[in-house]
Amino acid sequence: MTVWPRFNMASGPVDVSVETLRSMQRPVLYHYDPAFIEVFSHTTDLLKQVFRTDYDVVIMQAEAILGLEAAIASLVSPGDKVLNVVSGVFGKWMEDFIRKYGGDPVELSVPYNAAVDPDDVRRVLTTIPGISYLTVVHSETPSGTVNPVREICRIAHEFGVITIVDTVSGLGSELLSPEDWAMDVAVAGPQKCLGGIPGLSLLSVSPAAWAAMGARLDPLRASFLSVLDWKSSWIEQRRFPYTPSVTDIYALESVLEQALRESMESFVARHQWSAGAARAAVKALGLELWAESEAIATACCTAVTVPHGLTDRAIIDTMRSRYGVMIAGGYGELSGKLVRLGHMGQAAHPTLVTAQIGMFERTLLDLGLSFTPGVGVGAALESFAGWDDASGTHRF
Amino acid sequence: MTVWPRFNMASGPVDVSVETLRSMQRPVLYHYDPAFIEVFSHTTDLLKQVFRTDYDVVIMQAEAILGLEAAIASLVSPGDKVLNVVSGVFGKWMEDFIRKYGGDPVELSVPYNAAVDPDDVRRVLTTIPGISYLTVVHSETPSGTVNPVREICRIAHEFGVITIVDTVSGLGSELLSPEDWAMDVAVAGPQKCLGGIPGLSLLSVSPAAWAAMGARLDPLRASFLSVLDWKSSWIEQRRFPYTPSVTDIYALESVLEQALRESMESFVARHQWSAGAARAAVKALGLELWAESEAIATACCTAVTVPHGLTDRAIIDTMRSRYGVMIAGGYGELSGKLVRLGHMGQAAHPTLVTAQIGMFERTLLDLGLSFTPGVGVGAALESFAGWDDASGTHRF
Amino acid sequence: MTVWPRFNMASGPVDVSVETLRSMQRPVLYHYDPAFIEVFSHTTDLLKQVFRTDYDVVIMQAEAILGLEAAIASLVSPGDKVLNVVSGVFGKWMEDFIRKYGGDPVELSVPYNAAVDPDDVRRVLTTIPGISYLTVVHSETPSGTVNPVREICRIAHEFGVITIVDTVSGLGSELLSPEDWAMDVAVAGPQKCLGGIPGLSLLSVSPAAWAAMGARLDPLRASFLSVLDWKSSWIEQRRFPYTPSVTDIYALESVLEQALRESMESFVARHQWSAGAARAAVKALGLELWAESEAIATACCTAVTVPHGLTDRAIIDTMRSRYGVMIAGGYGELSGKLVRLGHMGQAAHPTLVTAQIGMFERTLLDLGLSFTPGVGVGAALESFAGWDDASGTHRF
Amino acid sequence: MTVWPRFNMASGPVDVSVETLRSMQRPVLYHYDPAFIEVFSHTTDLLKQVFRTDYDVVIMQAEAILGLEAAIASLVSPGDKVLNVVSGVFGKWMEDFIRKYGGDPVELSVPYNAAVDPDDVRRVLTTIPGISYLTVVHSETPSGTVNPVREICRIAHEFGVITIVDTVSGLGSELLSPEDWAMDVAVAGPQKCLGGIPGLSLLSVSPAAWAAMGARLDPLRASFLSVLDWKSSWIEQRRFPYTPSVTDIYALESVLEQALRESMESFVARHQWSAGAARAAVKALGLELWAESEAIATACCTAVTVPHGLTDRAIIDTMRSRYGVMIAGGYGELSGKLVRLGHMGQAAHPTLVTAQIGMFERTLLDLGLSFTPGVGVGAALESFAGWDDASGTHRF
Repeated sequence: MTVWPRFNMASGPVDVSVETLRSMQRPVLYHYDPAFIEVFSHTTDLLKQVFRTDYDVVIMQAEAILGLEAAIASLVSPGDKVLNVVSGVFGKWMEDFIRKYGGDPVELSVPYNAAVDPDDVRRVLTTIPGISYLTVVHSETPSGTVNPVREICRIAHEFGVITIVDTVSGLGSELLSPEDWAMDVAVAGPQKCLGGIPGLSLLSVSPAAWAAMGARLDPLRASFLSVLDWKSSWIEQRRFPYTPSVTDIYALESVLEQALRESMESFVARHQWSAGAARAAVKALGLELWAESEAIATACCTAVTVPHGLTDRAIIDTMRSRYGVMIAGGYGELSGKLVRLGHMGQAAHPTLVTAQIGMFERTLLDLGLSFTPGVGVGAALESFAGWDDASGTHRF
Repeated sequence: MTVWPRFNMASGPVDVSVETLRSMQRPVLYHYDPAFIEVFSHTTDLLKQVFRTDYDVVIMQAEAILGLEAAIASLVSPGDKVLNVVSGVFGKWMEDFIRKYGGDPVELSVPYNAAVDPDDVRRVLTTIPGISYLTVVHSETPSGTVNPVREICRIAHEFGVITIVDTVSGLGSELLSPEDWAMDVAVAGPQKCLGGIPGLSLLSVSPAAWAAMGARLDPLRASFLSVLDWKSSWIEQRRFPYTPSVTDIYALESVLEQALRESMESFVARHQWSAGAARAAVKALGLELWAESEAIATACCTAVTVPHGLTDRAIIDTMRSRYGVMIAGGYGELSGKLVRLGHMGQAAHPTLVTAQIGMFERTLLDLGLSFTPGVGVGAALESFAGWDDASGTHRF
Repeated sequence: MTVWPRFNMASGPVDVSVETLRSMQRPVLYHYDPAFIEVFSHTTDLLKQVFRTDYDVVIMQAEAILGLEAAIASLVSPGDKVLNVVSGVFGKWMEDFIRKYGGDPVELSVPYNAAVDPDDVRRVLTTIPGISYLTVVHSETPSGTVNPVREICRIAHEFGVITIVDTVSGLGSELLSPEDWAMDVAVAGPQKCLGGIPGLSLLSVSPAAWAAMGARLDPLRASFLSVLDWKSSWIEQRRFPYTPSVTDIYALESVLEQALRESMESFVARHQWSAGAARAAVKALGLELWAESEAIATACCTAVTVPHGLTDRAIIDTMRSRYGVMIAGGYGELSGKLVRLGHMGQAAHPTLVTAQIGMFERTLLDLGLSFTPGVGVGAALESFAGWDDASGTHRF
Repeated sequence: MTVWPRFNMASGPVDVSVETLRSMQRPVLYHYDPAFIEVFSHTTDLLKQVFRTDYDVVIMQAEAILGLEAAIASLVSPGDKVLNVVSGVFGKWMEDFIRKYGGDPVELSVPYNAAVDPDDVRRVLTTIPGISYLTVVHSETPSGTVNPVREICRIAHEFGVITIVDTVSGLGSELLSPEDWAMDVAVAGPQKCLGGIPGLSLLSVSPAAWAAMGARLDPLRASFLSVLDWKSSWIEQRRFPYTPSVTDIYALESVLEQALRESMESFVARHQWSAGAARAAVKALGLELWAESEAIATACCTAVTVPHGLTDRAIIDTMRSRYGVMIAGGYGELSGKLVRLGHMGQAAHPTLVTAQIGMFERTLLDLGLSFTPGVGVGAALESFAGWDDASGTHRF
């Protein structure tokens, strides 16, 4: 049997807390048991607080790619023009869904280590008439970058364009709300910053998005991809369109409770601070960040350009096999070009950032790089000056 | 907070074993960690053994209704004629999917307390030309009945018709195999007889079904509903089309191991025997089975006609609130007409059948029915003569 | 590997609730971590409420036999006269401890299916001068009987005698308090009615008992058996005399919370009612209770005389191997004479009493006894008329 | 509620692995259930392998201080002369037990940062006639030092002296065996290097020790402190002298399995290497080890003299409250003089050593010490050159 890693610091799914593990030890309820209706309602309420929204939220079964496909399938009708803002692998993927459901994609793209300029969005929307939807990825996990979604979506709203945002790894990494950020459908995942288990899509849906779904000639209904089914069943009647994943809901309830106990402000700050420390370490080691500037680096993971003479596999495999720490490499087109230090969920903390940077240093030394051991960790430690757990809370 | 039940003996999801709960306490692995690839491969192998098949099996994320929609979406092209065999609520639902993906449904139906006669299937296939697919539900959980799927599908194969079978609650309740039963796509769920958690679809896919999916003009790809994506990614490259539910896979691996440790023969016998004992109890209590004959009663739950003068809600709510046992009522059109004793997973055992029948008796007495207390349990106990756990195994 | 039972309904340790299991999944704290000090303090407070006392309580490490030895070792000095009230195996054992620590035992005994008459205690105390201590077992688990401890200890107090009571399986089975029952040292266990895990001794200590321990010429100190060490360390300084069992304390905290959530009144009523139903079943089956009268039967287990022609081993082994239910037999001198149905913790509920009686019936039928199947369960079900879980609470 | 630490790196109890936590989720068996007899036997066999011994081993309930008191209570008779070798707080405590059971202690002591010289032991044994027993602490956890127990005990054996060794935190930190090290009674704990939960005493007992216990005029029997009771009950009859801690045994079984899966050689090497790295870090930071030389530093924790101008409480509390890492301070006479970095169990690994040293550095910086951040971690990383997890195993 393959030896398991000691720490999973990949870019999602990641290690979950012992409290989250324990939450899944609750007995499996029948989904129409009043106790489960209560758990699900409670979880929905918590999700609204984590999303900081008054919009409806929908917890769909299956990981966020289902939520993204469902959003597009539920909104886009044949012939609809969709502005797809692309700054990475995940953004590019949106095009497949847009085409599959008959949409007509208009692409605005930048290199995969950059972020889109809101002015360019405005320019496209001004130039090209008849755009109904805008799709954009907030935190491009494979590149370790973020787009200025708040600015982009606000511009879209000026033009009456409905926005669909992939914030799968963004929720918890920045202090956002669908209303403030003008996101009509925002899709998040529990297995990234929230530190939960994969298997659910977390959507917030604006009244405008509901209206658009319902206004289609042939609204999508009676399908696993239907977001509207959730409105008419769960939201309006407290019934389920299918059997929900009882245990996954337990885990989600738990991670939302943990985040709110800490407060979203602290939760986000913890991720931002950890990411900053990781970047400081990378620079102190003389390595290059993949993101073209620190300003557009995401808080969920830090993408590092593979140093000359090494390979991503050598780094990842050595770190995994010798020191038991699993990190992620590139993905799709970015494969081989970068490795990603992970600081989502529990890993967004000085203890585990230090452990990870330490093992990263040790690995690079093993592979022949030359630097003063500890210089990366030292830079991270300096960044962490002023940190105080006691300002947050961490309970069991 | 609503008080939780002591036992969940509904018709799925049901109580899981402590071993299954424990399996989910394993750390959440990154899906491309070699240890997870190993777990997923192992689970796939176990599933093949539980399905008793050499066909490919596919573990899709999201509960079986996704698997059913995916099977139809992946196979049925606009204009395809589909014979939909209907003996209950779930069978009728298939029609929605058939129409959604452009199919032309031909319905063969019987009342929802009966089973379809294979001769009628032959008659339809003989009479109506050009039928490409047949859809049928094996175990109609809402009615507590089974269809003779082996005979039906074998006839379909004589006519070159591809079969799609909903055996969500059937796997584990009868000794089946896709090859022997001529099922091209069989869709099962972990949360029924297997006693697992909901959130996955378990498919077996015959070479003919793969061929049919691939032979479409526009094969379904790059969608959460694509079964083909799993062939080209997982089966051929050991990659995932999306992030799998790591923890749900742990639970699935565990319930499959538990079933195989017991042997599928014992596992099925345990369910059949328990169901027989439940029916004996129902008759001894002077109540009526919903199924028109014992021969077509499913082994996963026993549907009982609501006795004159009572309501399903009164029975279910009393049993739940006074004695902590959750059972299910009717569903859709059957709502209000029946209640269902559950004997899936752990509940398929003399201990819990006895506990459940006992609480059912106590509830009926509370609601004013008149019979000798213990007469139902007594009949069940007589049915259990010869039972011997030691012939199976039950470990931790 | 030996197959594990499905239900452990022995006379302690017994099955614990899933909530209790889950409580042990908390990280292991350092015993001087402020969070552990808090847990231990909280647990102590809860224990006071469960004991319904204002006396000090002490949670010693190791199961209650340590607590009993410690109480005697801490109190009894060479030459002290101790009235040992004996109605069973455990009562008789006290004599060993009394002698080991130099005491001079005076025995008042009855047959091991009877209870001691308080008048006889008064008679002995009147007749024999100079008795300093009285030792008595409240609930004699091996015999399934109880002594009238409240009356006995109140009489002892009239004579200025310090009382030491083994209520290991008594706490939770009757509504007691050390003050009301005149118990100077009461020793209970978590693994009986409380449904916890074995490994701790739960003591309540009256001011008179503390005074007596301190007044000895050579007070017992710096020993694992010293109760006084707990006073000077934990009670007075919030320090531990040794490293406490962190995880066992978590489990104890949990079972105390569960009991108090239900309320001690409901908790005790649940045990009494379940015991009554078990006795009704035994009588309906034509079997004999071991206790000479129902009035002195304990609420924690029901001892049944082994029917003529059978052996305890045949009953226990058949029930365990065929139906997965573990019950206990006799102990010490009572070995071979009786079997004990268990209704402690979770098992004190109509569901599991019914399951157990059902499997007991099935076992007796297998072994050749003749009766109408279900007659025992029927009697239990009649006893349970009026039961309503909703009056208590059962949460996760 | 007090915030819990993220990592418990104290000097025992310490964080346990997720595998260990999970092992405790097994149902609580009745102690005379054949499945529990099997678990207990298996655990005993594993313990022999971990102790690398053919001697009998005894698993007593309650933490090791009970085991030590029991060993002395079972061996030492009034008047017996006992050479007590003292190099720290725990060694000094032995005297209390020796006196309590009537022994006549002869002390050979060194300062609490030093180790005893075997030649001095020989000198005392040569000089003072009639010594029957020698007591010595192997790993003095409070001082972070070890005594040369192998040499000491071998000398004792030359003189026919029976040896009683406290190796509570020593088992797993050095490659020992009772036979090779001439330890007649060795007492270990599960909650130190083994990374288990506190609540058990693990004893190995030589034939000579058994003989000495049995040869006493009044052998200790029928007491919780009797080691002989375990011989006549468990070892000879597979019965228990009292109710064992079922769940604690599950945890012990698990940690022993984990250690043996890794192999005792790797297990010990992992601890030794981690300790060396911690010492390298301490020196690089310009701090002083408490132990007078590295050669006598224990592998279970690293005691560091509190730097001038700081207090132990400031260091411990800051590290705990700001960074969530719990470490231990001094104990008894050593209180206030030192802090202890912990590397037992899971913490004996580059990841957690790095995390701990990092937080230690950060804490010292917060408290005003001046050094290049990362210099300690860097030294540890250099020490870890050549480390390779893959040579051990770490599974779930």
